[in-house]
Amino acid sequence: MQSEEREMPNADLSLVDAYWRAANYLSAGQIYLMDNPLLTEPLAPEHVKPRLLGHWGTTPGLNFIYAHLNRIIRERDLDVLFVTGPGHGGPALLANTWLEGTYSETYPDVPRDAEGMRRLFRQFSFPGGVPSHVAPEVPGSIHEGGELGYSLAHAFGAAFDNPGLIVACVVGDGEAETGPLATSWHAGKFLNPATDGAVLPILHLNGYKIANPSLLARIPHEELDSLLRGYGYAPFYVEGHEPAAMHARMAEVLDQVVDKIQLGERPMIVLRSPKGWTGPSEVDGVPIENTWRAHQVPLSGVRTDPGHLRQLESWLRGYRPEELFDADGAPRPELAALVPHGTRRLGATPHANGGLLLRALKMPEIRAHAVDVVKHGSTHSEPTRVLGRMLRDVITLNAGARSFRIFGPDETASNRLDAVYDVTGKQWQAQTLPVDEHLTHDGRVVEVLSEHLCQGMLEGYLLTGRHGLFNCYEAFIHIVDSMFNQHAKWLKTHQKLVWRRPIASLNYLLSSHVWRQDHNGFSHQDPGFIDHVMNKKAEVVRVYLPPDTNTLLSVADHCLRSRDYVNVIVAGKNETPDWLSPDEAALHCARGAGIWDWAGNDEDEPDVVLACAGDAPTVEVLAAAKLLREHLPSLRVRVVNVVDLMRLQPDTEHPHGMPDREFDALFTADRPVIFAYHGYPWLIHRLTYRRTNHHNLHVRGYKEEGTTTTPFDMLVLNDMDRYRLVIDVVDRVPGLGQKAAGLRQLMQDQRTRHHAWIREHGEDLPEVRDWTWQ
Amino acid sequence: MQSEEREMPNADLSLVDAYWRAANYLSAGQIYLMDNPLLTEPLAPEHVKPRLLGHWGTTPGLNFIYAHLNRIIRERDLDVLFVTGPGHGGPALLANTWLEGTYSETYPDVPRDAEGMRRLFRQFSFPGGVPSHVAPEVPGSIHEGGELGYSLAHAFGAAFDNPGLIVACVVGDGEAETGPLATSWHAGKFLNPATDGAVLPILHLNGYKIANPSLLARIPHEELDSLLRGYGYAPFYVEGHEPAAMHARMAEVLDQVVDKIQLGERPMIVLRSPKGWTGPSEVDGVPIENTWRAHQVPLSGVRTDPGHLRQLESWLRGYRPEELFDADGAPRPELAALVPHGTRRLGATPHANGGLLLRALKMPEIRAHAVDVVKHGSTHSEPTRVLGRMLRDVITLNAGARSFRIFGPDETASNRLDAVYDVTGKQWQAQTLPVDEHLTHDGRVVEVLSEHLCQGMLEGYLLTGRHGLFNCYEAFIHIVDSMFNQHAKWLKTHQKLVWRRPIASLNYLLSSHVWRQDHNGFSHQDPGFIDHVMNKKAEVVRVYLPPDTNTLLSVADHCLRSRDYVNVIVAGKNETPDWLSPDEAALHCARGAGIWDWAGNDEDEPDVVLACAGDAPTVEVLAAAKLLREHLPSLRVRVVNVVDLMRLQPDTEHPHGMPDREFDALFTADRPVIFAYHGYPWLIHRLTYRRTNHHNLHVRGYKEEGTTTTPFDMLVLNDMDRYRLVIDVVDRVPGLGQKAAGLRQLMQDQRTRHHAWIREHGEDLPEVRDWTWQ
Repeated sequence: MQSEEREMPNADLSLVDAYWRAANYLSAGQIYLMDNPLLTEPLAPEHVKPRLLGHWGTTPGLNFIYAHLNRIIRERDLDVLFVTGPGHGGPALLANTWLEGTYSETYPDVPRDAEGMRRLFRQFSFPGGVPSHVAPEVPGSIHEGGELGYSLAHAFGAAFDNPGLIVACVVGDGEAETGPLATSWHAGKFLNPATDGAVLPILHLNGYKIANPSLLARIPHEELDSLLRGYGYAPFYVEGHEPAAMHARMAEVLDQVVDKIQLGERPMIVLRSPKGWTGPSEVDGVPIENTWRAHQVPLSGVRTDPGHLRQLESWLRGYRPEELFDADGAPRPELAALVPHGTRRLGATPHANGGLLLRALKMPEIRAHAVDVVKHGSTHSEPTRVLGRMLRDVITLNAGARSFRIFGPDETASNRLDAVYDVTGKQWQAQTLPVDEHLTHDGRVVEVLSEHLCQGMLEGYLLTGRHGLFNCYEAFIHIVDSMFNQHAKWLKTHQKLVWRRPIASLNYLLSSHVWRQDHNGFSHQDPGFIDHVMNKKAEVVRVYLPPDTNTLLSVADHCLRSRDYVNVIVAGKNETPDWLSPDEAALHCARGAGIWDWAGNDEDEPDVVLACAGDAPTVEVLAAAKLLREHLPSLRVRVVNVVDLMRLQPDTEHPHGMPDREFDALFTADRPVIFAYHGYPWLIHRLTYRRTNHHNLHVRGYKEEGTTTTPFDMLVLNDMDRYRLVIDVVDRVPGLGQKAAGLRQLMQDQRTRHHAWIREHGEDLPEVRDWTWQ
Repeated sequence: MQSEEREMPNADLSLVDAYWRAANYLSAGQIYLMDNPLLTEPLAPEHVKPRLLGHWGTTPGLNFIYAHLNRIIRERDLDVLFVTGPGHGGPALLANTWLEGTYSETYPDVPRDAEGMRRLFRQFSFPGGVPSHVAPEVPGSIHEGGELGYSLAHAFGAAFDNPGLIVACVVGDGEAETGPLATSWHAGKFLNPATDGAVLPILHLNGYKIANPSLLARIPHEELDSLLRGYGYAPFYVEGHEPAAMHARMAEVLDQVVDKIQLGERPMIVLRSPKGWTGPSEVDGVPIENTWRAHQVPLSGVRTDPGHLRQLESWLRGYRPEELFDADGAPRPELAALVPHGTRRLGATPHANGGLLLRALKMPEIRAHAVDVVKHGSTHSEPTRVLGRMLRDVITLNAGARSFRIFGPDETASNRLDAVYDVTGKQWQAQTLPVDEHLTHDGRVVEVLSEHLCQGMLEGYLLTGRHGLFNCYEAFIHIVDSMFNQHAKWLKTHQKLVWRRPIASLNYLLSSHVWRQDHNGFSHQDPGFIDHVMNKKAEVVRVYLPPDTNTLLSVADHCLRSRDYVNVIVAGKNETPDWLSPDEAALHCARGAGIWDWAGNDEDEPDVVLACAGDAPTVEVLAAAKLLREHLPSLRVRVVNVVDLMRLQPDTEHPHGMPDREFDALFTADRPVIFAYHGYPWLIHRLTYRRTNHHNLHVRGYKEEGTTTTPFDMLVLNDMDRYRLVIDVVDRVPGLGQKAAGLRQLMQDQRTRHHAWIREHGEDLPEVRDWTWQ
């Protein structure tokens, strides 16, 4: 289709069309050209990049939407955030931000002139340049392209607590097949039109994925319509390929849907347009436009095939660049009439650079919530329950700012954070019944049984400058492994971009952990998220294993104040001894790891070190220390607790890492170390293999032996129970003599007794259930 | 509601009701009782378990469905497989299999008498007993309870190539909120009514999750109806709580939907029944039945609160056990009239013990596809493209058996396996257009842009006794981390159950890997799935990194023949030197790791070992070896390649592990080892930290430095390029003198030159692009 054939219905839409052509020209230019950006001379092979890398297929549709959004933003002075689900359409966002000026404001070395255009083209998918996908480098974006499925969840997260904001979210039809996206439609049941912004989903049916038609493009219209209405939306259709008609229809529909949004309704748009729209319709006799073959680079032989080169030139000239850019390469002034003003520009909205909007949380005094500890381990409390009370106060203190939310997959009460319901509720716009509790139209807690949706909404909330916490069963956080990956990658890049301001950290509270899944068993037992997290850049990730209530409060306080990290906190909900006073907890957390001298008897010269990280291992290590003191009083035992797992690494590997000297001072240079660890034992080896005393390190942890059983039996099954730890000491400390052999036998007998006891009584040995340190 | 009030419409449904009561009685008994199973004496505290662990809420609904399925299976002689989405309803499946006799046939120590019933009750959620969730231990199950969201995908996988089979899949309404489930509805667009079985989804709207209403239970009826029709189903509703009416309606609806299924249509059932149906309606003045409070254990104080104890006894007696079981505790003979015959019983279907049905794949000769290698590295090929040709023959050879499928998220062609389309197509029942390629109603390839759905369907296919392969971009396989976890856990338990017969391994082919994501960049770069897999039991997981085409063929052949494992194969699709001849490849893969003597010059006494695992690292190591031979000919270099990563572990840790002696023979006891590894470098340390020479091991790998750039630049960014490896050698081998310093400088210069070159030319240095070993 040649643009000459078009007739525009009115001047306004002619401008939209010109803008669209300009964006399409700039998009194709990025994919192909490294020189001659304005086609001021005939296109020659040396103007073309040697490696053609990028995705054309989705790009013209994104450009179409962007141009039309510009019109209505400007016309109605709307506050809009644009989320690009098909993020492989990077050229579109780069083209549009350059056109509207925000790109050059962000990157002055890529100005709006011919040289700037040359750089814009050349840098794309080029070594040392910019990624081919939408990425943190792109102004106006909060959504990394690449892995598909999270756009709508991000959009809903961005809309929370932003009344007046419209988040226009393009959902790709390939993306729409993913599970996370398929369930994200339901997030409409959480957004409150009175206190939150609106999400406008724009389902872009361009028909094809990489190699297949998309499912939603190939079901009958009535079925699609039924599906979208079933998700709770009123769909408006913009379908076709003829630009003039499409412009008219899109403008009309956008007017309608914005009206609806402003009435608090839930409209959406279905844009059915050809994949690779306005690109080559055929290449070498094979159909390209409106097929899957338009997904990446429609003309692949441009450097070597003169026919392809001519076809590229004719395609590019078809946009009539001379009408769109002046001789210096700047967009012609007419185009500026479509660009919204200042921060209304999609590339300049502060919502997409959330750090600009971020205000520190008001934090309660930890002490107001800390538990009293007169003697170590003399009282017990439920760590997450106490944390719930602190979070309740965080909610109260920041109620006015409306800048803090808790997300969870139906587990906030199960994880014992329910004190928050004293002051807020669970946000919910669907039907309610009298029997319901804590459901409210406007609440700080969002619960939906989709870890994907929780993670995605929290990411969207954080990236737009707010604060939050995701509480989840430890085992099931693996569901979002890949989403964590993408967010960690985003943060890595974000940290290096000076124009992107720091955002609040993504805080995970993992509770109902591997050692206490008494009623669920093996399927609920997996501590491996820590291992997964540790593969990402040290600058981005932090892992904390607070051993008791006061350390949990201290860690949570620290994490909620931090910026640009992913913090993983693993903490139990069951009653645990209160080991440290508030002061001791603060000091211990600040150090990240330390000797608990009150628990040992080594007087600076230990025979053995008992180390622990995690609440359950800490109890076992202290129980083992107590047994050793009773039975082998002359053995000098040191107890070390690690709360910040990153401390174990060398300081060359992680900013929290310990120098060798400090590590040796804690763990000794030559004594046996028995380390009881919350998760898979090899992680501790991985973190410490370069340490002086590594060959003396013996780690106990979860070794994938799980089932529905008692808490202590879980420890026995995985060889991390107190009796086993004592045996480990006896086996590794030389010269203990006859008394040690007796102790070893006693411990073995206890394990045998345990085995028989639980099968008879169905609960743990009385001496374990009633055990106290004091 | 008291059962006395009910009036059954006819004898048949009275029997269904009696069966349902029996199952409900047995379910509640499992949760509460450790003795007095038939209530032959008044219920006393000591009859009650000390720890009450289990999920009552979903259980009566499952029992209701199971009883009605029994009726229609028997009446029509149907072949039905039951998939329990709300797998926390373990008591229901245990109760029903015991009632129908399959449990006692599988576990003769739990017979159908009073003592058997006592054991059935006592073992549930009891130390040394059975898990509280549906698990491999349960006859008739292919679906682990616990993590929600995968039931429908499993059901569709089970239905493929099983014409005549009806997979009745209960979808929990909490589960329905998860992403994987939300998209699994669409799988109906792949199932061919002529050649596959049918899936009958039964959406169980019992209204609540752990602490919240479920979304689908709280949207208007029309919206729900619209949603399900939009997913492509004709929903039939069974709604209410009065048993007689519900029985009549359920029977009527089941008759209708089975008729529809037999006509090739896609009906489904929505069962809206109270959570905790027939359980206590109130406890201590608080509503329980039909609220979220019925989720787990409705009466919690039974051992200590006499009121709770009385209420439990009255609840249990309300089922009238004396009418259901004879004095010996056996189900009364009347009930047997509802039990299907033989393997028609849901607990006895061979589909749920797929190993019974498994037949070995007919495998083509590897040699027919292997590439000729006259001299090592003298030719190049694309490993996955050649594998595609072998897979094509696998498809042809097993066409009659219809027992092999390839699943992929729209990437089978991108991963260059497209030779399979010579002999088969992509199965697809939605609309087609003339432009489409390879879409067919009956094909061996299933592509949908949901890794969750691919994984779930493949699991279902394997667990019912067939074979398959999941091909995926390496980075995005993390999307199914948690699904892999659950399958690996299933296999671990399955391997120990003698009655469960071995099934085909789950084979991952991860291509388009971290080192070759030229056009996608950082979001597509993540080799961490290997690390994730390594946390699971050694008996279950295998990881292969074939360095070239012939080794890939050998590894794939091995994996497709294997049983009860998860095999991860990472292999590139880009042109790679053909290092090994077919014979050499077979030998190398059998050994798993070995010295490539033709690539080194150490003559049994190396000065340095260059080790590699993965295709890209292998090229760099060989290029480094070549550079060293040119520049430092007197240096004795040994090249070791590792194809089976598990070989690196000690033989005490993994069945494939090497004894220390063998490891030392390969890697020496005291020479520097420079190891170039495909993934995150610390994994190699984790596998080898106990080895003699570990302190001399220096690992290069992916360290999270990614972007859109050239292949060689990716290596440089991550310090794994050939020049860096040579520098590593020079830095670590003592006594190399002046010549080494010159070489070091030369290598630095090359890196500097590379840096400038790619920024100028947009492609790699000519000497890298044109490099060959020969």
